[in-house]
Amino acid sequence: MMALPPTIAWSGTARDGHLELLDQTCLPQRVEVLRIGDVESLVAAIRRLSVRGAPAIGVAAAYGVVLGVRDAANGDAFHELLRSAGDALIAARPTAVNLPWAVRRMQAAGTHAASLDALLDEARAIHEEDRALCRAMGEAGAPLVREGATVLTHCNTGRLATAGDGTALAVLFEAWRRGTRFRVLADETRPLLQGARLTALELAAEGIPVDVIADGAAAGLIARGEVDLVLVGADRVAGNGDAANKVGTYGLALACHAHGVPMYVVAPTTTFDLGLEDGSMIPIEERDPAEVLTLGGSGIEIPEVGARNPAFDVTPGCLLAGIVTDRGIIRPVDADAVRSMIGG
Amino acid sequence: MMALPPTIAWSGTARDGHLELLDQTCLPQRVEVLRIGDVESLVAAIRRLSVRGAPAIGVAAAYGVVLGVRDAANGDAFHELLRSAGDALIAARPTAVNLPWAVRRMQAAGTHAASLDALLDEARAIHEEDRALCRAMGEAGAPLVREGATVLTHCNTGRLATAGDGTALAVLFEAWRRGTRFRVLADETRPLLQGARLTALELAAEGIPVDVIADGAAAGLIARGEVDLVLVGADRVAGNGDAANKVGTYGLALACHAHGVPMYVVAPTTTFDLGLEDGSMIPIEERDPAEVLTLGGSGIEIPEVGARNPAFDVTPGCLLAGIVTDRGIIRPVDADAVRSMIGG
Repeated sequence: MMALPPTIAWSGTARDGHLELLDQTCLPQRVEVLRIGDVESLVAAIRRLSVRGAPAIGVAAAYGVVLGVRDAANGDAFHELLRSAGDALIAARPTAVNLPWAVRRMQAAGTHAASLDALLDEARAIHEEDRALCRAMGEAGAPLVREGATVLTHCNTGRLATAGDGTALAVLFEAWRRGTRFRVLADETRPLLQGARLTALELAAEGIPVDVIADGAAAGLIARGEVDLVLVGADRVAGNGDAANKVGTYGLALACHAHGVPMYVVAPTTTFDLGLEDGSMIPIEERDPAEVLTLGGSGIEIPEVGARNPAFDVTPGCLLAGIVTDRGIIRPVDADAVRSMIGG
Repeated sequence: MMALPPTIAWSGTARDGHLELLDQTCLPQRVEVLRIGDVESLVAAIRRLSVRGAPAIGVAAAYGVVLGVRDAANGDAFHELLRSAGDALIAARPTAVNLPWAVRRMQAAGTHAASLDALLDEARAIHEEDRALCRAMGEAGAPLVREGATVLTHCNTGRLATAGDGTALAVLFEAWRRGTRFRVLADETRPLLQGARLTALELAAEGIPVDVIADGAAAGLIARGEVDLVLVGADRVAGNGDAANKVGTYGLALACHAHGVPMYVVAPTTTFDLGLEDGSMIPIEERDPAEVLTLGGSGIEIPEVGARNPAFDVTPGCLLAGIVTDRGIIRPVDADAVRSMIGG
């Protein structure tokens, strides 16, 4: 997005610098950049979704480990902080596996060399690698988008969700760059409207035609033949290809399956959790009911009315036409295909 | 709802009275009653959903015919206004069949006897009959609700949607009166939040435990076994049992079907349109994109971002466990069963 600051940036040295996060809770109304100097602030920013999207959370957490250990007075304190800061970051949100993946990689780097500069280098490497993963996913997936197609997507999976072009949106950006012309239906993605606020913003900035729809409208439009392709991201993919993604994804998959519309998850290798046999083992975050009971800042709360707010759901791999990864497309989706593309 | 004025009431004589509508666009924040004295005001109120719900629209339109003809200077003018006021009312919204049904019944009454008092009597009869239909649906459906069940519902189908206890909610109110204890998950129902604003209000007023959920959360909760029964209303039911209802209903039906959760449409005989062979013939209203692009009064509009806003979708009868009517439960749902319960 041309007019926006970077989603995530490190400014300054490892010892004196800070993490800059574009505050996604304010978009599209206001562009505000958070200056994050300690782990507690970063945990709070991750929890309230100032930074969100599985890959972006991983990158932010990598820098968070630098923030967490830099006040260590000696080597013992360094290793103690490496552990405790990592634990605090991992506990910020449970579903996206990129978060523990990035933290554990940082902890391994810090164990190998108890050096702040080495840790910042490792975080920068994770950041740069994520950009490359986005590029590779975009290239692998772009041929799926046909000229004149209507592509439906859910939540935000673009430059605001990653360090690069995105996951599902990277596919769309790459297809657009190659000259394919298509239009997008963006699920608004209640309760926090990442589709209406963020995806619509990113696509419009590139000149890609986009219409926002209520999440409940997708199945009917799919039934009426108005959708040719569905591309979504993921927060964690189990060993058999079951994928946890923003709540509402599973319903899309059922509608696609009922009407023969191909639906792909687009996710980098860092989002796979091969230690989990299937999606039932993925922890699903339940968020504050207030997110559902308030809308755009105007409370609609009625005394004695509660809310349930699961942030994710799990789509069985067997409902997917494929999973687009940085290494190519897994299809059909099953444990063998996942293992041969990602495992080992 | 104890504290609320009636959804629809006629006040005064046929010649000098007016229609009172509880303005549902303001709930739950403000209780405002609209005083409607002419057809144009009623058409506008129906269009902006100040009165909504298929049966309530029908009742309001019946009174609207009285408003439309009462300035007739002579018999010819009476019949001309009977036609033109009816046309204007029917054109207000295309999907709910109760609207043309009620208008045509009023037109037949006016053709039979060109008397304002007779027309008001007919409107009052439609109003009173709808109350009785609600009672009968509640009684037919109440045994479906099991002790301890979690019942999911969509949009608003209660006292605010009808002249009586409702359609799907009438079943819940009657089960509750019989002593069955259960809890409700209410889809918030974007874009206009009839679930979060109206259904939650109605259930809470009766002491029935209710949690609001984002529409996209329903499929995942159904998959996790957290829903035992789904009850929804309808705006028009075709001859084979295909049912148009508030957008998002079809996705619920797919999730219920995938997980063996029984889903019932609850609709009075006045909502059946036996002239339509199947649901593909039901006109689906597409409403103003601004409803999707604004949230609770706070605009999230981004230049060059549009919206699609179909207000309804169609659920094939074959996905339903049954249709609860004022005459009993149609099940399984097919053209023969509909004809034997409703037709003839």
